[in-house]
Amino acid sequence: MSGAARHKEANSCNSLYGKDLLDIRDLDKDQIKFLMRRADTMLGALNSSKRLDPLKNMILGKLFFEESTRTRQSFEIAIQKLGGGYTGFNSDKETSVMKGESLADTIKVMSLMYADVLVLRHPDEGAGREAATHSDVPVINAGDGVGQHPTQALLDLFTLRMEKGRMKDLNIAIVGDLANGRTVHSLAYALALFNNNMTFIAPPELQLPRRIISDLKNNYSISTQKTSSIEAALDVDVIYMTRIQRERFKKPEDYARFASSYTIDEDFMSKAREGTIVMHPGPRLTEISPKIDSLPGSVYFRQASYGVPVRMAILKSLLVK
Amino acid sequence: MSGAARHKEANSCNSLYGKDLLDIRDLDKDQIKFLMRRADTMLGALNSSKRLDPLKNMILGKLFFEESTRTRQSFEIAIQKLGGGYTGFNSDKETSVMKGESLADTIKVMSLMYADVLVLRHPDEGAGREAATHSDVPVINAGDGVGQHPTQALLDLFTLRMEKGRMKDLNIAIVGDLANGRTVHSLAYALALFNNNMTFIAPPELQLPRRIISDLKNNYSISTQKTSSIEAALDVDVIYMTRIQRERFKKPEDYARFASSYTIDEDFMSKAREGTIVMHPGPRLTEISPKIDSLPGSVYFRQASYGVPVRMAILKSLLVK
Amino acid sequence: MSGAARHKEANSCNSLYGKDLLDIRDLDKDQIKFLMRRADTMLGALNSSKRLDPLKNMILGKLFFEESTRTRQSFEIAIQKLGGGYTGFNSDKETSVMKGESLADTIKVMSLMYADVLVLRHPDEGAGREAATHSDVPVINAGDGVGQHPTQALLDLFTLRMEKGRMKDLNIAIVGDLANGRTVHSLAYALALFNNNMTFIAPPELQLPRRIISDLKNNYSISTQKTSSIEAALDVDVIYMTRIQRERFKKPEDYARFASSYTIDEDFMSKAREGTIVMHPGPRLTEISPKIDSLPGSVYFRQASYGVPVRMAILKSLLVK
Repeated sequence: MSGAARHKEANSCNSLYGKDLLDIRDLDKDQIKFLMRRADTMLGALNSSKRLDPLKNMILGKLFFEESTRTRQSFEIAIQKLGGGYTGFNSDKETSVMKGESLADTIKVMSLMYADVLVLRHPDEGAGREAATHSDVPVINAGDGVGQHPTQALLDLFTLRMEKGRMKDLNIAIVGDLANGRTVHSLAYALALFNNNMTFIAPPELQLPRRIISDLKNNYSISTQKTSSIEAALDVDVIYMTRIQRERFKKPEDYARFASSYTIDEDFMSKAREGTIVMHPGPRLTEISPKIDSLPGSVYFRQASYGVPVRMAILKSLLVK
Repeated sequence: MSGAARHKEANSCNSLYGKDLLDIRDLDKDQIKFLMRRADTMLGALNSSKRLDPLKNMILGKLFFEESTRTRQSFEIAIQKLGGGYTGFNSDKETSVMKGESLADTIKVMSLMYADVLVLRHPDEGAGREAATHSDVPVINAGDGVGQHPTQALLDLFTLRMEKGRMKDLNIAIVGDLANGRTVHSLAYALALFNNNMTFIAPPELQLPRRIISDLKNNYSISTQKTSSIEAALDVDVIYMTRIQRERFKKPEDYARFASSYTIDEDFMSKAREGTIVMHPGPRLTEISPKIDSLPGSVYFRQASYGVPVRMAILKSLLVK
Repeated sequence: MSGAARHKEANSCNSLYGKDLLDIRDLDKDQIKFLMRRADTMLGALNSSKRLDPLKNMILGKLFFEESTRTRQSFEIAIQKLGGGYTGFNSDKETSVMKGESLADTIKVMSLMYADVLVLRHPDEGAGREAATHSDVPVINAGDGVGQHPTQALLDLFTLRMEKGRMKDLNIAIVGDLANGRTVHSLAYALALFNNNMTFIAPPELQLPRRIISDLKNNYSISTQKTSSIEAALDVDVIYMTRIQRERFKKPEDYARFASSYTIDEDFMSKAREGTIVMHPGPRLTEISPKIDSLPGSVYFRQASYGVPVRMAILKSLLVK
């Protein structure tokens, strides 16, 4: 880091030190902007193969009660790119929970065994917040049921910043299973904080929960649009696709109809506004045709890559004063 | 480490270098005291976030033929806090043993592939000692069937030292499934070496094996007490609880009676001697009520945390001259 | 590394930087010799406990769609002995492929998430080459179906060099399931490149595929021998045994006959030529009697150990200019 960059960072107060990251709503605008600037610095270091070890000897404790590929791996990469290491488990089949241990005890023990930060994924909404009450070290919620996934929301904001030049005042269509996708729930609050205009596109039974819609209106003064028509995504700055889970549909024909009508392909993109970018938290199934992968607006792979500098920024901020 | 501390350590000979740690009885009093002092140093380093790498580039090979959460994780943390790394497997489902390879070959290969120390957990008693005959590098027995678990015994001693100020001349009640618990078998020998008075509390069918009782008497001149009454734990310095495994009981009603009568709760602790501490190797089920977690004598969580500095001390002692 | 050694290395051009390693035929003789010399250097460093970190902060991404003990572990050890770390998955049960993600996307994402090199094992022949087209970073094929396993072939060559003093002009008997063993397919090409004479010993139904035999003849001017008689291994420099998979045989009695007639034991070795060495890629089942393990010619355990310096040489060559 150059002297100037160091100076700049010194000027912005790191108020995240020692904190948990459980819900995107725990962060204010300044904290998010601080993380974005720090992720810039991390991205620069990654691309220049700079050798870093601010987190030397520090250990990330993985508590993945549900399996994950992308999120787990990007945390493992992030901590090691900063000189640290990791321990823990990748599925509930590997833990003492199998022997009947409580979540509270599992969390308490790992935090006391000198893990420096815990990263939790759990099938139950609220598990992150419960975990935090039992931990002596910062807890990062990496997805709790249909609840929150704040590090995903942060990497999504970083993607907007990198690919659209800003993360505010954008028109964003969010498409797919909005009822069950925790990614979307975190993202909606993050986008609202920066005054983005959102259109939620889903079949009625998979629309965003009403409580979130009114929350956005009452607490963020953001009014949003709801529709079941994918056509609404033709005239936006950003199309945010999500995975449709077959098992959510009672009738196979409903799934088939839905999956085929909500697919972004060459034809769709030829009709979309110029400069529109397409995002997806991954893994991608049939929602996006691989035929559009090489279009300049198809940013979903770069989006996955941004998970690493953003999580490096988060880890350093929680762990170093 | 300060100059003085370095001097002190230099004066105490590290006779453990290059050795295996298979059975607590392999260690004499001086070696145990050496490890305790070194664990003190490690604890100091952990609490001051000192950056350590005496084991840089060294690899711990995990051979967990049985799953473990706590022991495996604390070894993974310990080696990384000293600058090293790890490889291996967490369950027999992940190994060449599945393809029919012998234990001897699995051990031999990992030791020859430049792992610097092997940590073995295995369902068969004696597997640790067999493994050591095939390894070119130190082997640590992390539990072999109903046999031994010496690193647990060492962290238990360290807990006594930290929480009672000494690890000798204490009155200790050991409670639970004493027939099948390898933790208890290692611990009994460790406590005997330092002249502690032991009372074994278990239903007759789960009492400590007779051969251990006579061994303690004949080889350590330690006489012990046996009883099935938990009341005997009311007037001791230390209550050491262990997990009861439901499957050991033929009749469900026997388990229910046992589990309820051998539970330490607020009521029990109100009648216990002042200053009594409660230990448990974990995971804790119903043997200890979470309601006593906040009592000063409830040291079982700190006990788990001591596993890290103690295993750091062991690893450094076996691996560095 | 001494100044002289550094000079010597500087003189030999590292043309492997940034390349994939998918098939042993991708390497020319000079590149293989370069890797052998570099493996010498790595072996020296391992044996002198020199502290290395040329790959500090670099991450090896494991994509093991099929489980492996030895290959996976030796890569994990190799990257850490060079100061790097790893992430990824050890079986397809742990991945997003379970959620329906394509191989292309899985590869693309891991390479974009700042993994510095990918190591792939996959049940389908050609998966390595397909993976490479989707990766931004070097891909190492660690076994693709009945296809190739080039790092195994390189460690086999290194074994010949260490144990026979040279890797050319040797008489080598290759024994076992030659139809299905990818290890053998890579090895045959590597041996042909250095003008070794090969005799393939297998029952007719498990002989080396005819296309490889003619390939060796047409493209390497190497004529080879085929037989089903193990007696042909009595007068060679090197016996290369491989594991017989019971499930390849339709009738159990065929397996039994085969397994017993193709076993190398004390009796066989007493009749073999003096100085013959016995190799095996492991895991070893009944093909080699443990009774000959202590003979000087039984090099299969040292062979496993050479996997580490050879893979260190490969990793450094692909990752550092």
